[in-house]
Amino acid sequence: MFGNQLESLKEEVPRRIEALRSLMSENKIEAVLILQRVDLYYFTATAQEGALYIDKKREMFFIKKYAPRASEESPLDVIEISSLKEIPSFLPQKPKLLGLELDVVPAELFFELKRIFPQAEFKNVSPLILKLRMVKSPCEIELIKEAAQIASFALEKVPHILKEGMSELELAGELLRLIMPKGHQEYIRMRGFNREAHSWHVISGKSGTILSHIDAPMGGFGPSPAYPMGASLKPIGKNEVVLVDLSTCFWGYHSDQTRCFSIGKLPELLKRGYEVCRKIANVLAKEARPGGSAQWFYKRAKSIAEEEGFGDYFLGPKPYQTKFVGHGIGLEISEPPFLALGHDYPIQEGMTLSIEPKMVFPDLGAVGIENTYLVSSEGLVPLTSAKEDLIEVLE
Amino acid sequence: MFGNQLESLKEEVPRRIEALRSLMSENKIEAVLILQRVDLYYFTATAQEGALYIDKKREMFFIKKYAPRASEESPLDVIEISSLKEIPSFLPQKPKLLGLELDVVPAELFFELKRIFPQAEFKNVSPLILKLRMVKSPCEIELIKEAAQIASFALEKVPHILKEGMSELELAGELLRLIMPKGHQEYIRMRGFNREAHSWHVISGKSGTILSHIDAPMGGFGPSPAYPMGASLKPIGKNEVVLVDLSTCFWGYHSDQTRCFSIGKLPELLKRGYEVCRKIANVLAKEARPGGSAQWFYKRAKSIAEEEGFGDYFLGPKPYQTKFVGHGIGLEISEPPFLALGHDYPIQEGMTLSIEPKMVFPDLGAVGIENTYLVSSEGLVPLTSAKEDLIEVLE
Repeated sequence: MFGNQLESLKEEVPRRIEALRSLMSENKIEAVLILQRVDLYYFTATAQEGALYIDKKREMFFIKKYAPRASEESPLDVIEISSLKEIPSFLPQKPKLLGLELDVVPAELFFELKRIFPQAEFKNVSPLILKLRMVKSPCEIELIKEAAQIASFALEKVPHILKEGMSELELAGELLRLIMPKGHQEYIRMRGFNREAHSWHVISGKSGTILSHIDAPMGGFGPSPAYPMGASLKPIGKNEVVLVDLSTCFWGYHSDQTRCFSIGKLPELLKRGYEVCRKIANVLAKEARPGGSAQWFYKRAKSIAEEEGFGDYFLGPKPYQTKFVGHGIGLEISEPPFLALGHDYPIQEGMTLSIEPKMVFPDLGAVGIENTYLVSSEGLVPLTSAKEDLIEVLE
Repeated sequence: MFGNQLESLKEEVPRRIEALRSLMSENKIEAVLILQRVDLYYFTATAQEGALYIDKKREMFFIKKYAPRASEESPLDVIEISSLKEIPSFLPQKPKLLGLELDVVPAELFFELKRIFPQAEFKNVSPLILKLRMVKSPCEIELIKEAAQIASFALEKVPHILKEGMSELELAGELLRLIMPKGHQEYIRMRGFNREAHSWHVISGKSGTILSHIDAPMGGFGPSPAYPMGASLKPIGKNEVVLVDLSTCFWGYHSDQTRCFSIGKLPELLKRGYEVCRKIANVLAKEARPGGSAQWFYKRAKSIAEEEGFGDYFLGPKPYQTKFVGHGIGLEISEPPFLALGHDYPIQEGMTLSIEPKMVFPDLGAVGIENTYLVSSEGLVPLTSAKEDLIEVLE
């Protein structure tokens, strides 16, 4: 079922493990036990349920379920276990300092691991893993590009689908119908407790002025208070902005892209706001260089918005404006680097970034643009490709 | 945006908190701090980001983001905070034993809570919360029924959509297009670390024989090894079984329903297997009574499958047969009670159950049926309603 693509991922596994081993050595971490599905997929090429143990000399890949499939997908030898308790019996020596993904491993599982490794101290190893995952390989970039093309394909169809009176959720459903047959994984991954994400952020008119628990300029109503973000049952009206922030996922790799549409003409203020967002995105893409600071993106974007007289609308309604203009993207929809205030570390060639200048106009709605880019030595290369003009569909 | 439905949920909040308080008292838990989104929604009627503190005398609802929305949705008074660290300053006395959802709260957050409540011991309070959530109120039953009707509506359309050569993912996309405009929340919730779930479990022919990490008789290929379950790019052929296990969600409440289809005739063995699954579901629904044991469902189902000569195929291929025939369903797609071997506690009136007798035939595929039921004094009342005949679509 999964041919060449899988072979390319398999080939990368030894290199990724070796890179983590170097970071472990620098940080004096004797051994790690990787448990989270996304990290496991990164280091083993399979997303089956298990644990990857890595120390200075060896890696051991334990699978609880389903071992035959893990063996087929991963280049690593698989050791079948029925409980994590069995792991120490396979280890020639017990680690004194064991790295775990403590940002995501639940407390009860942590207590169990303390009982399994009674001699060990534990350290959070997620920052090292996320550091590694920031810079993408050519194979990963191809998968993100594929996800980006799926999104671009669907966004270009929106003008043909959009009809007055259809709900945001109906438009969302039409988009899902377009992207699923392309291999879209309709499960958008976001790291951390209570972090839920979705592909279908379709926001029209006043929905764009509705905030929610997510750190985003516009939350939207969502289907109900149980899931208070994204598309809702609100009907899409004439002369209101329809912002479609479409996340797609291919082979576990995400893309994030936003475009705006309307049925009939939009107020000039919104159209000007959209053009300023486009300008910000273009300036950032052109001026950014490897070695520049992650927070530069946010500061530069904000200064352009202010110069253009749109500072009050930029990144959300006052005083709830967000402090980021983009984020790294890969196996999780939002991952380091964060293009946010206070994130003063350099971006590097091979990183993939989603940049999303957006504006919220009280009572009117939200506009914005988002593309996913590759950081190259010459600036940012867009991987997403849908037309960037704001599309006013004829009534 | 969210009118009467929200009022009914709001009305239940005080009763739910009081019920938890009783359980806390029985279990000598002085206070609890609820943090997980689903549990918060259950106890507050809002899914905004925050924490609910409950002790013997009072409840205090802290919101990090977004307080105005939480105030609108919840009947509780909202205290806006920017960090969990602020909570102790609001408490008249510091708890010595604090209940937390330790099955889902990550280790790092737990360490932070230990620093915030240095005098406290901690206990996992999730079993008490899940115990409460097992028995549904009339309002909750209505929401599950609504989710069930959304699924039934879409499943009845499958015979009109199914075409030879379309991929499983394409059929999945068509189903999403049908259910999104009905208010379906395309984010299926499943409690716990690494637990991912999806609505689109479309499995055709040999996909039904593919296992994966999930505890289910059939995993399916999935879109890629990164998400190794559910619909895949496999084209649907003639004379092979198409099992559609469709999870839907309305106002946070789930329904689970499975039906089988084929283009052209199916092998007799599969058709007989499907009829045995129907028989099992009907017998369980008729014979079950409040007070009976949860594991009775599994044992009774298995004995019927064996009597009918289908024991080898029941609930998966040997030796990977699962040990459950159903599960409770509500705010999470799979929650207590578990109709599984070893679960020897009584079912009660007002519980909602998904019962899913399924069979896997090596080389041929998987068949099965699933309905969501309400436990009444007379037996089980189905909430799902799509026709139960196996549908052979004319070529």
